[in-house]
Amino acid sequence: MRFELTGCFRTSANVDHAVDDITGFFRDEASKLLSKGVPQGRGALVEKIWCEGQSICFKLVSDRYLRAHDGVLRLRRPLARLLGKRHRIGIRRVEVRDYVIRFPAKRPLKRLKIPYVKDIEYMDGELVLTLNVSEAEIERRVPDRIVSLVEDKLAMDEYGGKSEHWKLLWESEKREEKKMLDPTQQLVEAKWIKHGASRGQWIYGPEITKLFRVFEEIVIDEIITPLGYSEMIFPKLVTWEVWKHSGHAKGVYPEIYYVCPPKTRDPEFWEEVIDHYKVTLEVPIDLIAEKIGKPIGGMCYAQCPPFWMFLKGETIADESLPFRVFDRSGTSHRYESGGIHGIERLDEFHRIELVWCGSVEEVLKDSEELQERYKKIFTDLLELEWRMAWVTPWFMAQEGLTGLAEEREVGTIDYEAIMPYRNEWLEFQNLSVNGDKYPKGFNVKSQSGKPLWSGCSGIGLERWASVFLAQKGLEIDEWPPAVRKRYGKRPKGIKFL
Amino acid sequence: MRFELTGCFRTSANVDHAVDDITGFFRDEASKLLSKGVPQGRGALVEKIWCEGQSICFKLVSDRYLRAHDGVLRLRRPLARLLGKRHRIGIRRVEVRDYVIRFPAKRPLKRLKIPYVKDIEYMDGELVLTLNVSEAEIERRVPDRIVSLVEDKLAMDEYGGKSEHWKLLWESEKREEKKMLDPTQQLVEAKWIKHGASRGQWIYGPEITKLFRVFEEIVIDEIITPLGYSEMIFPKLVTWEVWKHSGHAKGVYPEIYYVCPPKTRDPEFWEEVIDHYKVTLEVPIDLIAEKIGKPIGGMCYAQCPPFWMFLKGETIADESLPFRVFDRSGTSHRYESGGIHGIERLDEFHRIELVWCGSVEEVLKDSEELQERYKKIFTDLLELEWRMAWVTPWFMAQEGLTGLAEEREVGTIDYEAIMPYRNEWLEFQNLSVNGDKYPKGFNVKSQSGKPLWSGCSGIGLERWASVFLAQKGLEIDEWPPAVRKRYGKRPKGIKFL
Repeated sequence: MRFELTGCFRTSANVDHAVDDITGFFRDEASKLLSKGVPQGRGALVEKIWCEGQSICFKLVSDRYLRAHDGVLRLRRPLARLLGKRHRIGIRRVEVRDYVIRFPAKRPLKRLKIPYVKDIEYMDGELVLTLNVSEAEIERRVPDRIVSLVEDKLAMDEYGGKSEHWKLLWESEKREEKKMLDPTQQLVEAKWIKHGASRGQWIYGPEITKLFRVFEEIVIDEIITPLGYSEMIFPKLVTWEVWKHSGHAKGVYPEIYYVCPPKTRDPEFWEEVIDHYKVTLEVPIDLIAEKIGKPIGGMCYAQCPPFWMFLKGETIADESLPFRVFDRSGTSHRYESGGIHGIERLDEFHRIELVWCGSVEEVLKDSEELQERYKKIFTDLLELEWRMAWVTPWFMAQEGLTGLAEEREVGTIDYEAIMPYRNEWLEFQNLSVNGDKYPKGFNVKSQSGKPLWSGCSGIGLERWASVFLAQKGLEIDEWPPAVRKRYGKRPKGIKFL
Repeated sequence: MRFELTGCFRTSANVDHAVDDITGFFRDEASKLLSKGVPQGRGALVEKIWCEGQSICFKLVSDRYLRAHDGVLRLRRPLARLLGKRHRIGIRRVEVRDYVIRFPAKRPLKRLKIPYVKDIEYMDGELVLTLNVSEAEIERRVPDRIVSLVEDKLAMDEYGGKSEHWKLLWESEKREEKKMLDPTQQLVEAKWIKHGASRGQWIYGPEITKLFRVFEEIVIDEIITPLGYSEMIFPKLVTWEVWKHSGHAKGVYPEIYYVCPPKTRDPEFWEEVIDHYKVTLEVPIDLIAEKIGKPIGGMCYAQCPPFWMFLKGETIADESLPFRVFDRSGTSHRYESGGIHGIERLDEFHRIELVWCGSVEEVLKDSEELQERYKKIFTDLLELEWRMAWVTPWFMAQEGLTGLAEEREVGTIDYEAIMPYRNEWLEFQNLSVNGDKYPKGFNVKSQSGKPLWSGCSGIGLERWASVFLAQKGLEIDEWPPAVRKRYGKRPKGIKFL
């Protein structure tokens, strides 16, 4: 990779009489400044300098060890000090005249529009980007983020597919007595559920809701109480601010249900809409679209990010660490791909979300304990045929990356169960150790100063129900005792003619 | 009120040779048709007729007993029968040339734009509307809805204010030992709650969440279990279709958080947004606004409407009536007016919603039982100073109407408690008997054919907490025994330095 930056320092006065000092600076000091902390023979090099009235112009070239624009920033202050002291001349700003970055690449990029890039060309195994940046962008590290973005894109093009990595960790015994039933079809036929008015949305009758509450009770008895999780209530409308801190802003867009507030709640502003509806009995959607604001965020996607606002910028007392909290206060919403998936894949679903946080050791220990507890629940209580796998963690998938996390401890375990009726495995929950991602993203520290890590695990009630009903069917008498006993008598549903 | 409609029946052939029959029809039959079911001397009158090639033209005038456009529809088929039989001429369509409706009014309307109205004038104590309608609008009853709308607006202008009616039903004894505390301020200072990232949104820590769950437990012990309510899960993204059936489409717009799906979930479609974020670390809101669809509805506002899709178009078996269900599966969201209200008035809140449905007598009896139960809870368990009042029901307020429901049985009871720290009463929950509004709106019938009524009651957890903490404070030891006993030990919150 090669960086070529042509630009100049704009000065407060003509620099003609300072040329000697400037030349001296670039000959002696500059190369020392540019080589600091950079391996021998690497980094940035001043290829050319010249003066033009109130400009000190330069061409810097570099590799990735010290990028040309970082080189310019390194030189600015010492040069200004020199000019100020000897000549009472100040540096007003940095002007970037031309900034080209060259990447080795096997093929051109698919997308040829990137912010602050005015041109992208591909020639002879090289991708050549011409940037359109000023000093402000350099200071905000825009070129660095362009480099990462292009590298990600090249890697993605190279390694192709978006398929996640997957590595089996553990598999339960086969179970012979499994049913061959489509869980959604059973539920619809029994009228335990009915379609809601929106896409991928269901209304759950008393019978299935009771099963959800049995699952919840199992989670409380086997996890919440023994492991000491405290219930909290996490917000369910999630703003951009939250997703910026959590990292979801890097890739969550295709699946969000966006939320827009009204431009005002002044009744007169809305009278036209109301009158239109009252007269025509049609909701004037185009008119409404004009009267609502830009999206402020979306409906809950991942459940834990908005919780972290509770901790944002705080230092947590040691006595409170590790902490363990959970939320079950509302719905999650994802704009899922089309097709019929019933309750196996939903746009609106219900989840118990566990979050734990502490030192590296504490978080890993909690993760292991949780894994043990889950194993007991799925094997002994729900009596499922299931397995667990080490997969691409959500925060990599989120960014369109595949592969596994670099460290062996940070990452995601998917829990999958066989759906006998279609002979495929369904992910029915996960467990992630997120490393320092959240504490860092939300600037949370520990009193002791030790690094904070965190983990989270989403228990999807519809997913549990899907795999349970697919393997066990709807006959309560045939359910495993741990579920049957808790479920008790079937509640009276609403019968239709 | 006076209706003046000039128009014509367009025929399939020239009617010159049928003039005598046409004249005869309008002289004899028409007045009989127009007077059917209308008080003597009232209704519509044919003021003029004339023929023009393929048109039979008329001017009809009427009062509100039989509106001119209804008169035209009454005449169409008999006239067509006559023309067909005697002259083999058909009526192709009705043409409305001019349609004026005059309302007595004390002052002009504030808003001068109404769909299908091309002109609104005010002269000499009369409001004169010139409609712009065709046969299709007449058949879809657009003029009738324009009349209702204008009447509502005139009534609203006359009786002024939007203040709801309010009539005290019952008041508890005064309590002397009340605290003088702002509940939100106490909670913030104790760090039991923290602001969420969005407007009117809070994050609830373990201590306050446990209090919410105590309230929930009380509701389960005192209401859900003894009265036999079954838990269901109601959807939380609410589409226009639901609000059209429930009637909310008539007025809910100023307070909705609107929901827009992405135009597509194709990752390439969103790449530009993602790249923009990754390079600039700013969410490109304008670009996103271009990439999302029109609003499909909004976040849950009232909690029960989406439930009724479960019953839509069904006939309920007698054995299932009356039924009693409840939902506590998620958040409600309202775009509330500004200002600081803490947890007393929120944009995002949590509610247990009860819905019951049966015959008129059953629904009224359930309402009374619920009232008794609530009385016990607020007086004996929460030990509040509170009162209940008969108020404008939501479905009238919704439509911008004030006043009380016409029938004494249908309507809303507001529960209010004194907030000693500001010496005002706060509504902390309500109970409504909605009459046949929902069964009718969603086309739900009973097996017996008896009219179905329904009721609903929203138990707002934040509101209960507001009034409870305002009167009792945050010291658990000082709470009434019924709450203290259920609450037990204070859970370990997360402490900050």
